Amino acid sequence: MDAPLRALPCAITMGDAAGIGPEIIVRAFAQRQAPHAFVLGDMAVLRRAARWLREAGVDSPPLAQIGQAADLADLPPGVLPVLEPAGLPAGLGQVEPGRIDARCGAAAAACVRAAVDLILRGEAGAMATAPLHKEAFAAAGEPYPGHTELLAAESARHGHPAEVRMMLANEELKTVLVSVHLPLRRAIDAVSFDAVLQTVRIAHAAAAGWGQPQPRIAVAGLNPHAGEGGLFGDEELRIIAPAVVAARALGIDAHGPFAPDTVFMRARNVPGHPGEFDLVVAMYHDQGLIPVKYLGVEQGVNVTLGLPFVRTSPDHGTAFDIAGTGRAHAASLVAALRMARLLARA
Amino acid sequence: MDAPLRALPCAITMGDAAGIGPEIIVRAFAQRQAPHAFVLGDMAVLRRAARWLREAGVDSPPLAQIGQAADLADLPPGVLPVLEPAGLPAGLGQVEPGRIDARCGAAAAACVRAAVDLILRGEAGAMATAPLHKEAFAAAGEPYPGHTELLAAESARHGHPAEVRMMLANEELKTVLVSVHLPLRRAIDAVSFDAVLQTVRIAHAAAAGWGQPQPRIAVAGLNPHAGEGGLFGDEELRIIAPAVVAARALGIDAHGPFAPDTVFMRARNVPGHPGEFDLVVAMYHDQGLIPVKYLGVEQGVNVTLGLPFVRTSPDHGTAFDIAGTGRAHAASLVAALRMARLLARA
Repeated sequence: MDAPLRALPCAITMGDAAGIGPEIIVRAFAQRQAPHAFVLGDMAVLRRAARWLREAGVDSPPLAQIGQAADLADLPPGVLPVLEPAGLPAGLGQVEPGRIDARCGAAAAACVRAAVDLILRGEAGAMATAPLHKEAFAAAGEPYPGHTELLAAESARHGHPAEVRMMLANEELKTVLVSVHLPLRRAIDAVSFDAVLQTVRIAHAAAAGWGQPQPRIAVAGLNPHAGEGGLFGDEELRIIAPAVVAARALGIDAHGPFAPDTVFMRARNVPGHPGEFDLVVAMYHDQGLIPVKYLGVEQGVNVTLGLPFVRTSPDHGTAFDIAGTGRAHAASLVAALRMARLLARA
Repeated sequence: MDAPLRALPCAITMGDAAGIGPEIIVRAFAQRQAPHAFVLGDMAVLRRAARWLREAGVDSPPLAQIGQAADLADLPPGVLPVLEPAGLPAGLGQVEPGRIDARCGAAAAACVRAAVDLILRGEAGAMATAPLHKEAFAAAGEPYPGHTELLAAESARHGHPAEVRMMLANEELKTVLVSVHLPLRRAIDAVSFDAVLQTVRIAHAAAAGWGQPQPRIAVAGLNPHAGEGGLFGDEELRIIAPAVVAARALGIDAHGPFAPDTVFMRARNVPGHPGEFDLVVAMYHDQGLIPVKYLGVEQGVNVTLGLPFVRTSPDHGTAFDIAGTGRAHAASLVAALRMARLLARA
């Protein structure tokens, strides 16, 4: 499979049409930072985004509508290729920026579903997804809280049942999350032996994709000081430590549970401070995301592990407050595209 | 009160005798980074620490036993003054480094109690506490999970009932915690309207001490994305947002609740990235400590807010794994001493 995937382009999904997704996509192409990629989206929405960027002083690229991914080969460089999936709602080019709109939620979902179809048909090699807005998504009747859950369901529908985990990564830290969009109370309930072990296994398997067949995996505790021997909670003793032992019995180089407040610092890998671990398994959303985002969200890339394909996304949201101004930066999307190429090529 | 406090020395408590506390204290004096301070501790323990440091190539200072804080004035510079509190267990100088020992827990508690006495008698101006080991503390029969709770109880015993909060601070970020050493489940239960409002009030009042009478306070949410409008938990809507409104009604410049995964990044204050807020109120221990510690624990200082005196401590633990080797760095203790001087002088 590796060689053909290598030549396949990356599909970029438009995200919520009222958010900054269309603008950062156009900006990434304008900066020539989206090589061998095409957009799944709405022509009118992307044209409007290009106009906003021009008004903000950015020299936008010309747009070209394509009928299939293979048409990419016929386009001159510097053009932004757009493939419109079937079933996009009408009037998307007129939605108000920064406003929750069910049509935008429906369009975002249609683009993601089309991307899965294309990849599983062998027409694209990976996907990078621009941000959707969860309330618009819910307003469109989507039962999924976000991309990750939709992608898992779509994979299953195509005969690839997938247990997925979210990884957030930047140059110096990779964290893989046991759960994502749950209230914190329910996230604690979700810390089970099976969930922790499975997260470690998914992370271990995925790391081969970026060239680390035997990654050093740190597992964070749940409670302050990882429970300090049971004084502040017993999930470490009852659940997490046994899961680490089970992972090691499978030949995985897992360690922990470690005190959450220092494990990310210990894994941080920068010149002069080599990380003690290659990735950290975090017990809940904010435990893992706070350290990756601390130095600036633009550096972070969201990677979905466990899918039958590579999917990355920027780690910011729709930024409704600046949508339509042409001011949004494309750095995190560019990093997501770079990561997608890296992982799909491996 | 300000002028006399200014001239009073800082009391440094020894911490757990089997941990790195005695070594980092001696090292701070060896580096001449502990001006106008004395140690509450055991002579034999500190002599042993000085020997370990000499064996590690550090030119240790001479020790001088003093009978009261006022004796400090008679000592030549470069000497490490030690005041032995009454009731220290015998044989402390022979305890094994890196081992939980009830005698070490008892000694650590005795030093802290003596420091409170000295400050409230007007003989010391502030305290910096070296780390204790919570299991040794418990083994000694202490009912408190850590320093903070002991200090609040001691203040109350002296007629100063204090509601305290822990702040962790480094050069670029200050976070104040609603709760500290609770299992995460119980920490969620502790997020009440009163607890959040009181934390904001304590933080606001304390900030005057470091010269910010009207600090910009960010309040973090509890759930991913601060609940995203109720989709992932309702504590933000039910509890935290009303507490922020109540704080604002009191004239406090409080904002939020904000998404936990980005609020610390937003408050981070470095050249080229001015923080949007002066401090962040965090809903639980690891939410607030992960970002402060991420760039390296040595930079972090723990400050107890709400006490009738200034108390700081390094933000690392007893480091039993390297105790007795003379290798522990004193940077965080030195930062704690600097912060204590800064706050007590204000």
